Amino acid sequence: MRVVSRFEELATEGREVGLVPTMGYLHEGHLSLIERAAECEAVVVSIFVNPLQFGPGEDLGDYPRDFERDLELAEQAGADVIFAPSAEEMYPEPLLTRVSIPDLSHQMEGRMRPGHFDGVATVVTKLLAGIRPRRAYFGRKDAQQLAVVGRLVKDLSFPVTIVGCPIVRDQDGLALSSRNRRLGGKERAAAAVIFKALQAAGKAVIGGEREAGVLCQLVSDSLGAAPLLKPDYVELVDATSLQPLVELDRPSFLAVAVNAGGVRLLDNIHFFVEGEMIDLGRVLSRPSILGAA
Amino acid sequence: MRVVSRFEELATEGREVGLVPTMGYLHEGHLSLIERAAECEAVVVSIFVNPLQFGPGEDLGDYPRDFERDLELAEQAGADVIFAPSAEEMYPEPLLTRVSIPDLSHQMEGRMRPGHFDGVATVVTKLLAGIRPRRAYFGRKDAQQLAVVGRLVKDLSFPVTIVGCPIVRDQDGLALSSRNRRLGGKERAAAAVIFKALQAAGKAVIGGEREAGVLCQLVSDSLGAAPLLKPDYVELVDATSLQPLVELDRPSFLAVAVNAGGVRLLDNIHFFVEGEMIDLGRVLSRPSILGAA
Repeated sequence: MRVVSRFEELATEGREVGLVPTMGYLHEGHLSLIERAAECEAVVVSIFVNPLQFGPGEDLGDYPRDFERDLELAEQAGADVIFAPSAEEMYPEPLLTRVSIPDLSHQMEGRMRPGHFDGVATVVTKLLAGIRPRRAYFGRKDAQQLAVVGRLVKDLSFPVTIVGCPIVRDQDGLALSSRNRRLGGKERAAAAVIFKALQAAGKAVIGGEREAGVLCQLVSDSLGAAPLLKPDYVELVDATSLQPLVELDRPSFLAVAVNAGGVRLLDNIHFFVEGEMIDLGRVLSRPSILGAA
Repeated sequence: MRVVSRFEELATEGREVGLVPTMGYLHEGHLSLIERAAECEAVVVSIFVNPLQFGPGEDLGDYPRDFERDLELAEQAGADVIFAPSAEEMYPEPLLTRVSIPDLSHQMEGRMRPGHFDGVATVVTKLLAGIRPRRAYFGRKDAQQLAVVGRLVKDLSFPVTIVGCPIVRDQDGLALSSRNRRLGGKERAAAAVIFKALQAAGKAVIGGEREAGVLCQLVSDSLGAAPLLKPDYVELVDATSLQPLVELDRPSFLAVAVNAGGVRLLDNIHFFVEGEMIDLGRVLSRPSILGAA
């Protein structure tokens, strides 16, 4: 495995590259993306905590980092190249160019984090332009981000396939996130409720329920039983347009964001609608290669 | 020479591509770019009248077109591939993604044509993303566009070199433009004054003049002597930041826009500052391969 810090050093020319963009502090979710990317001729994992997608007062400064551990884990999972640029490599001059998708950026996470998705769209454009992958892998936990990136590559004609991958969860169902480590003990225990609430909605869908209001209420009620969690939103939206649905009648996801003692947690359940069939997607609980970490 | 209408058909993989983006209705200026691009392994000429960079009330509908003639001329000049996408290929769905560079888009042409450079930046991003050239060729007549594109590729990490090429002029000095054909006889005759006015400023610079106010006034005075031309702006600006200069002390250009009987004409003179030397750039008058056209 090579570790490079400049685009010119990537030297993947001629090989079909699979890109896994990350902000580091890798967990099993990232590793599942890297393993999936092995279907390409070369797997590039980018590690860059992108200042552009953090707002003032957000956690840019204390976003968790452990570069040496990341290298080890990425190599075990099958990465060929780590692209770890400095802020100077990514933003040598003040950035004057912005990539934005206003219609997909104002709702849900975008409502709470103005400018966040402009930052995501801009850095993803840079990675796609500079690395030229044929496929890029994103987790479904950040479902709005996946919709933004999917639209971006179509709109900007990047010849890249965006692969959305299943959420990886802890034993108790909590979606893995680099931010989970900041949870206090009580909040961590309470956070298991989030997935249970989503499962309740999933079961209702399997039982025939299609009304968005009913499904979201089910989730809100379950979350309400855990006083340490403050729900921010519970929404059922079209998976590509992010328009709120009245009825579950198309590919969509039911997304929640909660505040758990100052830590923001996201989760969602995707509904893949094929004719009359609704598939809730896999709930992936991988055998850990991280041990107790 | 191949003519293709979809990105997937380009099949230039592995070859070092030189891209010449045009809106068609080719003239000697375009042909000089195509000839220059022959330094690459494959020359792709794109022909697409981009609706996104025209404002309401602008001349999108009657922008001059002659596709068969364009093919002949491009082939003579050395093009390997013509990329002529339909509007549906470029914009299959409503475009939600925008690329913008506000700091370089609000002045000069941008002041008169709000949204114009967002349209340029977005379509250029699509061409660079979809075609993956190593070099792209632009004429210096559209000097602000060149600054926008140059900044865009740096900011978005495209591994492409932007090559700015000399303005090609008619016998009497008028900068070639697809829009020139719309000039009435009197306006066409009067338009020769534009280059003479810029030359007067160039001579003053060679004579030692460095004050922007004096240089711009020289140009304005010369233009004022031609009553059929209505100057819109005369500005000396930094070639990359587009900031107006007080004194000519860096790479810059003196740009003019005039309205000639409803036809908008642009021209400029570039100053390449090397130490104490100021080079006015070549005034290129090519032997015509177009005959009387």
